[in-house]
Order: sequence, then C-alpha cells, then structure tokens
Amino acid sequence: MSFERNNIHAMTGYTSGEQPERPDIIKLNTNENPYPPGPAVESALRGIQVQSLRRYPPPTASLLRQSLAQLHKVEADNLIVTNGGDELLRLVLATFVEPATSSAGGECIAVADPSYSLYDVLAAAHGCGLKKFPLRADWSLPPDFAAQLNAAGVKLCFIVNPHAPSGHLASPAEVEKIAREFRGVLVLDEAYVDFVDPELGHDCIPLAMRLDNVLILRTLSKGYSLAGLRMAYGIGARALIDPMQYKTKDSYNTDYIAQTLARAAIEDQAYAAETWRRVREQRAWLVARLDELGLRTPPSQSNFVLATVPAPHSAAAVYQALKDAGILVRYFKLPGLEDKLRITIGAPEENQRLVAELTRILKR
Amino acid sequence: MSFERNNIHAMTGYTSGEQPERPDIIKLNTNENPYPPGPAVESALRGIQVQSLRRYPPPTASLLRQSLAQLHKVEADNLIVTNGGDELLRLVLATFVEPATSSAGGECIAVADPSYSLYDVLAAAHGCGLKKFPLRADWSLPPDFAAQLNAAGVKLCFIVNPHAPSGHLASPAEVEKIAREFRGVLVLDEAYVDFVDPELGHDCIPLAMRLDNVLILRTLSKGYSLAGLRMAYGIGARALIDPMQYKTKDSYNTDYIAQTLARAAIEDQAYAAETWRRVREQRAWLVARLDELGLRTPPSQSNFVLATVPAPHSAAAVYQALKDAGILVRYFKLPGLEDKLRITIGAPEENQRLVAELTRILKR
Repeated sequence: MSFERNNIHAMTGYTSGEQPERPDIIKLNTNENPYPPGPAVESALRGIQVQSLRRYPPPTASLLRQSLAQLHKVEADNLIVTNGGDELLRLVLATFVEPATSSAGGECIAVADPSYSLYDVLAAAHGCGLKKFPLRADWSLPPDFAAQLNAAGVKLCFIVNPHAPSGHLASPAEVEKIAREFRGVLVLDEAYVDFVDPELGHDCIPLAMRLDNVLILRTLSKGYSLAGLRMAYGIGARALIDPMQYKTKDSYNTDYIAQTLARAAIEDQAYAAETWRRVREQRAWLVARLDELGLRTPPSQSNFVLATVPAPHSAAAVYQALKDAGILVRYFKLPGLEDKLRITIGAPEENQRLVAELTRILKR
Repeated sequence: MSFERNNIHAMTGYTSGEQPERPDIIKLNTNENPYPPGPAVESALRGIQVQSLRRYPPPTASLLRQSLAQLHKVEADNLIVTNGGDELLRLVLATFVEPATSSAGGECIAVADPSYSLYDVLAAAHGCGLKKFPLRADWSLPPDFAAQLNAAGVKLCFIVNPHAPSGHLASPAEVEKIAREFRGVLVLDEAYVDFVDPELGHDCIPLAMRLDNVLILRTLSKGYSLAGLRMAYGIGARALIDPMQYKTKDSYNTDYIAQTLARAAIEDQAYAAETWRRVREQRAWLVARLDELGLRTPPSQSNFVLATVPAPHSAAAVYQALKDAGILVRYFKLPGLEDKLRITIGAPEENQRLVAELTRILKR
C-alpha cells in the first residue's frame, strides 16, 4: 500500500552526477574544486572538541553569519546559512510559492532553459508548476525575460549565474534590469561565482541589498572545496530571509562542526582565492587545447566548460570512451545539449590526462 | 513588500529551549545527554582528512546505514538517515500529507496532547491541519485512540514514545493495536527510547518491519550525546522509506563528517549504553529526592522527569528562581502543564545542585 501524496507518487527523484568509489578515477563531472580545503580548515578541524557535540548547535549559525556579514559588507540579519544550496532552493519554494493544487491560488516558478535539473525535482516535490524560458543561442537571457515572466504570472524565478552548463555570465546591470521589472522573487544561484574573473568586478550583492525581491545563493561546496560539508548561504532583504530563518528551515539545520569549519574557510579568503586563480588559469589552458581539438566552448566564467563535440563524433560516444579510460565528464541527454559535454576544470595533471585521452579518442 | 505564502505569513516559528552562552549554567532544559561522546567518536574525528571534504558525501549515508542495519537487524533499505530528527518529521509531512488547502483533498495530522510543540510549527509550515487528542490523566493513550484517529480522517499520527514531557512509555503491544487499527501512517518518535529500562525489553522495530504503516524515528542527539552533530534516522517499510530517500529529502542531506562520526558512535554501543545506565541511575536518585521535596513525577522511561510543583508554590516562580540560581529547567505555559517543570537528568553533581537549590527555594 502506498501512502504517498499524488505529486510525490508521480514524480521522479534527482539523479546526481556519478560518485565512483574508485580513487583512481579522474572526476570532472560534478564541478568540485580540484584543490583541497586549506590549512585554516584543517586547523579548525583539529581544534574541535568532541564534548562540544553534546549540546545543540547555534540554530542560526550566528558566528558564521558574522564572518559572512563582514566579508560581504551586509548585516548578519541579511544572511541565512543552510545545509548545502539544496536546502536554500527548497526553502524558497516552501516559503514563497503556493503549490499549484492550492485553493489559495496555485503559483509557478520559472527557470531559463536549459538549467540545473534539480529545479524540476523541487517543483514536482513541492507540487507547483515550472515554466521554462529558452536562453538565446549564445546562452544569454532574452532582453524581454522579465516581461515573459510577468506575462506568465511567475511567482519565483531562478537564474543560475554564471550559468550552468554553459558558464555564461550575466552582468549585474542585466540582472538589475530583470529584477526591477519582474514582479516576483528573483533567486540568483551564484554557486559558481567564485570562479568569475576578478577583473570583471562582478558583484550582485549590492543589488540584493537595494531590491526587496532579489535573493542570492552562495555555496562553500565549489569555491571553498567543501562539497562534503554541506554548507551554503542566502543573502537578501530581511523580508526574504526572516521567514526562512525563523519559520520554514529546520530548527537546527546546520551542525556545530560544519559551522566551525565553514567559518574558518570564509575567514581565509587568500587560500580560496588562490584556488580560484589556478582554476581560471587551467580553464584558459583547457579551452585552448579543446579548441585545437575542434571542441568549441562558449566563454566560461565558471569552473567548467561546455564543449561541443564535432561531427562525425557523438558526445555520448566520447563520454563513454572517456569513462572507459577512467575519466568522468557530464553528458546531458537533453534538447540542445546532445552534442555537448560539460567538463569540470581539474588539477593540471587531470586536465592533461583528459586532453591526451580526447586526442586519442577523436583520432580513431 | 511580503512575498510569503499566506500560511507562512500567518504562522509563528518554533521556539527552542534556551541555549545560554555562559558555561557555568547548569542546563537541564533541553534533554541533552550529560555525558560527552565516547572515545570512538573522538578517534573518528581525529581520523577525518580535510581533503575528503572536497567531494560530495555519500547521498544516502550508505556506510552508516549498513552499521545501523546490523545494529537493528533490518535491511539498509529500511533506513533513511536525516539531518536531525527535525528533517525526518518534516519529510513525513512533505511526502505523505496533502496540504489542507490542496484541491487534491486536504489531509490532517494528529498528535496525542500535550506533545512536542514543533509539530504545530511543522503543520503550519506545511499548510495542513493538526488535530490534538488528549492523553489520559496518567499520560497513557486512550484505548480507543485509533478509532478516534480514523473517525477524524487523520492521515498521519505522531506518537512520542517514551512520551514527552511526561516520560510515560506505551508498550509495543499497545502501539501494535493502534497501528493495526489506524488507517494512516503512524510515526513513533523514539527520540528518548535509549533511556528505557532494558529489563522491559521494549522494542517496536519488529513492528515497523511487520506493518507497512509504522515509521520509527531515532536520533543520535540524546542517546549518543551528539545533539551538535544533527544526525537521526527513520526505520520502516520500503514503501515509507523510498519516497523520502529518493524523492523528497535534499540530495545530499547529511555531511561526510557527521556520517563518519555517527557511524563510530553507533558501532560503540558499550560506551553509549553505559551513559544510559548512569542516566537511569541518576533518574531514580532524582525522583526519590524530588518526592521527598513534595514534587511528584509520573514514572519516566526517558532522560527527563515531569515534576509537579506543590501548592502554594508556582511552577513559573520556581522555574525563575532556579534560573536566577544558574539552573535552567523547562517550563511550559500550556493547559495541564502550568504547575509542572520538565527537568532533564544531568550528571550527579548537576542533579545535586538542583536538589540543593530546590530545597532552598521551596523552604522560603
């Protein structure tokens, strides 16, 4: 007998990227940072006393929020710390979007298409509608994006910026224009923002502080090499943060060790920034090599590139051949992506192995 | 401008027990274990390599589920690991209960009253109804409890067993009778079950394995001294576990360190069991002393007791006097509880301090 709600019964769960147990696999499929967490995190870990675990953790991660507030020049009350970015994405739906089946009037969310497949799963689990608005050929947002959202009556829209899987970056001016015109909540998923070239001076936080409908998601999974720790945070106006902080999130949503290690990572910006610099350096190197091999990539401001596999080769076959050679990349069997591979920027030796294998595979 | 859903806008968040920063406070208010985690947890913590944090953690905590399966003699597939008990409580609502406003037909949940105040918050956030069925004077469940639930059309019912705040234990036979008759999902919140006298041989897990509508919640917060780590789990039929495991929980809901330390704690049953024995020993001691002071307590199988403050003293005043003396206990300003205090069993010296202060306060 099934007790599931109808929408849960009907839905399909999220399929995450493969996480093989074999340590010799080169993993360029889930956008982890190729460098380990730094000495500050190591030292914070060594400083943890197990007896601290006996008591409940600070429910809103106050000390970590103070460090984040200082880093981003916002108030601690403009920040919510979550158990990975997943939790924040779920919370915005639970807090701001009426399920489509609701008698209070069903609402829907929107994404620019293609996008992170987790959004489909979240909408299905919440029981709300999801509308997809196609990106332009160069992966940029259409100029009338906000008008399209308003016309469709969208309550909440996710923009992944830099975009996944392309790495395309929308400027703060573009985002601001959309946010000012859009009548719903605009969530900027900045999971990959740490890898943006600093010379661009890209910063949407002032926007989230000026407008009451902009919420920024940041994560420590990629930029701070802490995917295993599940720590992320939201930045926004108190009208957006407070109901999640004090009503919809689980009472003690992040643990004591994660709060402590995340704080150490955030307070050591120099170490993290050096990993970002190396990733950008490797990104430029890899793009040039891929180009020589005939695999074009749109300009990426992220820690991955989206490479088009040239005919007569098929992306699916190249994905499989790489996998057979012990290298995992990501292949999405989705409209517009069938001829492409998303490749995470690895450490130099990993990228070199990838290029060597690709060279071999494409010469067959 | 507020973007909140109506039910979120209207609700009040959960108020957790006070967590003072002052280390000299005697905390007998939030039911933590008075003893620290054991040497196995310490050693697992020292064994963590920070570079392991770079990658995503096992999404369903496979190794920990294997250890739990061995401990409880169930299959790993009958287990879901969650970010504290809070997450599991939220997941059962999200997965099995239609919001009351839903056009699919609103459903409601139920609790035996009085109960854990978080249930009210969870129902309000989910947007479903919550019905309360009064316990009898001795804190036991009414004999026609299942019939009452069925008559009210309840979809899911929480039974806290041992009960909070009384410590009363319902037997597996009582629970089985209810589960067999009730047409919805029965969630047994066994957060405090580790403190049950082992001579009673209390065990509801076989029941959860036999019936497809029984889900058991266990937590490492109390019994394993790991409230700061946020680790709990559910035990039940796959029809209950699977949709939460693969559809509604966040993709990576528990982190690598928490999984590793929880596993170490679970595999060292001898250490945990010794803390339970000490708590039971202190419970007997404290009950006898409270009795001498005129504070009656119903028989408790938990790590707290519910003490009635005798007239002309008021429970609120005694709570405050204890607080002034640096001892925190829990006072609930709720019908039927106004003359009572819930007191967590502390370490021997903490319980002695409590008794000394109570003696002083009541003699005034």
